[in-house]
Amino acid sequence: MADQVIRIAGDSPSEVRVGDGALGALSALLERADRAALVADERALELHGDRLRAHGLPADLPTLALPAGEACKDLAQLGRALEFCAEAGLSRRSLVLGFGGGAATDLAGLAAALFKRGVPVAHIPTTLVGQVDAALGGKTAIDLPAGKNLAGAFHMPVAVLSDPVFLGTLPEAEHRAGLGEVVKSALLAGPRALTQLEADAPALAAREQAALARAVAMAAGLKARVVEEDPLERGPRRSLNLGHTFGHAIETVAGHGRIPHGLAVAAGLILAVRASAVAACLEEPGLLGRLTALHEALGLPTGLTDLGVQLEPSALWEAMGQDKKGSVGRPEFVLLARPGEARLGVALERAAVEELLIP
Amino acid sequence: MADQVIRIAGDSPSEVRVGDGALGALSALLERADRAALVADERALELHGDRLRAHGLPADLPTLALPAGEACKDLAQLGRALEFCAEAGLSRRSLVLGFGGGAATDLAGLAAALFKRGVPVAHIPTTLVGQVDAALGGKTAIDLPAGKNLAGAFHMPVAVLSDPVFLGTLPEAEHRAGLGEVVKSALLAGPRALTQLEADAPALAAREQAALARAVAMAAGLKARVVEEDPLERGPRRSLNLGHTFGHAIETVAGHGRIPHGLAVAAGLILAVRASAVAACLEEPGLLGRLTALHEALGLPTGLTDLGVQLEPSALWEAMGQDKKGSVGRPEFVLLARPGEARLGVALERAAVEELLIP
Repeated sequence: MADQVIRIAGDSPSEVRVGDGALGALSALLERADRAALVADERALELHGDRLRAHGLPADLPTLALPAGEACKDLAQLGRALEFCAEAGLSRRSLVLGFGGGAATDLAGLAAALFKRGVPVAHIPTTLVGQVDAALGGKTAIDLPAGKNLAGAFHMPVAVLSDPVFLGTLPEAEHRAGLGEVVKSALLAGPRALTQLEADAPALAAREQAALARAVAMAAGLKARVVEEDPLERGPRRSLNLGHTFGHAIETVAGHGRIPHGLAVAAGLILAVRASAVAACLEEPGLLGRLTALHEALGLPTGLTDLGVQLEPSALWEAMGQDKKGSVGRPEFVLLARPGEARLGVALERAAVEELLIP
Repeated sequence: MADQVIRIAGDSPSEVRVGDGALGALSALLERADRAALVADERALELHGDRLRAHGLPADLPTLALPAGEACKDLAQLGRALEFCAEAGLSRRSLVLGFGGGAATDLAGLAAALFKRGVPVAHIPTTLVGQVDAALGGKTAIDLPAGKNLAGAFHMPVAVLSDPVFLGTLPEAEHRAGLGEVVKSALLAGPRALTQLEADAPALAAREQAALARAVAMAAGLKARVVEEDPLERGPRRSLNLGHTFGHAIETVAGHGRIPHGLAVAAGLILAVRASAVAACLEEPGLLGRLTALHEALGLPTGLTDLGVQLEPSALWEAMGQDKKGSVGRPEFVLLARPGEARLGVALERAAVEELLIP
């Protein structure tokens, strides 16, 4: 299957390459920069460092190994990454390469955004969540003690190289979490993407490379369109938060780390479609049934009970009031009219929402 | 004297008010925000907190007192400010108020830039450097162990309220340091600004309010024009670094904190004009003499020897190669053809530059 290339126009143009030849673009990226440095998840480095070097990454490139997974997204690691950029002698014409899952590319992206107020960054995401969502579109962040992703910046990567080969080594739970974001992307991309995803569901569950590449390219294409229109999330980009107001509240109330983000979002998507029906916004009544069947085929939760955690409706509502996109205390929802058509910034009654949340 | 209002158009419009009525705009700013919080230099708060409250700042506004002066510009204080924003429950529709000198407004601005990826910020600068330069234009930063201002972001303040009354309590050294930036602004603003500044020099040295307000408004007007044209410092905005390639090198080689930034810049301006002559770029041969006389009238250094520190020419050259605006190892200079006309990104021979630096 040929690689796919998706371009994002704008003040900070970006290019996403998807396929097992995506890393072929690495050498040219490195050549354009006056210096480069690698900021990488230590586990990704162990598993896949050889594949990078086989595609032209110099063996002596300055490299910062981050603690694996979400542990790297804090202020101390950010400080470490900034010092590393200084030691590597990077200029504004250099390149930071982020390598790993969404946490590593978030941290690398934020360090690149801040060092000298902006060094170009390119990402090589190694997880499904990274390839379909986190590494794309320039949102970076660290967690604060007060909450996830509370401090960050917009810093568009000059390139994202998504190689489906990396996805073969993912733990099953991380693979499924990524599928949650794939479903979200298809719901927003429109009827064709959703039908394709329904057809690909068994192949995706079995991690067939061609189906994975198709799903990643679909999600990247959607994100490119939305981000191009609204790079700073002032309006239409908020559609990408479909399922996330519910999802973030689920993660918060369950206690961070207990429920993987992608599964919380998957449950959030079901809730968002149910809320769309309650708000009389949903124009395609069969959508909830299709979505439920799709989640079953992909091994995703079809509701809160599937998460196996007790979640109080009132606690979920309170947590939604803290979401970073809304005003103080007033949760806002992204709802769906039909696949490809979102409704933004919808306020819902507390009682109606809590009723949806009763297990 | 009536207040002056300078507007900066663009994606992130900004408004600068200069005069002893500037704080009159505070209440309206607070009313527009869903919440607000004050991030302030502890010394400014002690000296001038009452004046803020007299202009409508609520006595119970959440307030973070930062260590006085440059001590607040590090990662630990940034973390503290971010946690403070979380505790204050700020949303993207809230307002962070930065209050103090350039260090405090830099830290407040960076925290606002990062919290939830961007909360609006307004600054109330209390020093001359803050009012003529640091609080304007959206550049924020902290220092890293590896160097000053090495990590930061562009985050345009929605408003800057510059009240010359605050300048009365400044230590003399800080006042003079601010005058260095005033001279830089006049050199870039053009012949009229320079002539006005020459006429105002005695009044500025004596801190007369009307002359101070005139100088602040002149500098703010220049910065507004330049920033409007080039908000992210990709081209013309670099003119604002006139004298700064030399100035930063002087600060670095002397050891940080030994020579106030504004005095290093003042010496750097003299060097930049001399370098402009050497590079056959200067078209107004009398400029060096005028600038020297102006510096004398303002109590500013007229050359390296006035700084009272031994500075090796070769060490200065090496330090210039580390400047954050250039590529790796190749210093770039801003030179002057005449007042109001800068030449950007000029590369100079090492030998020629070192000759200028011999005491």
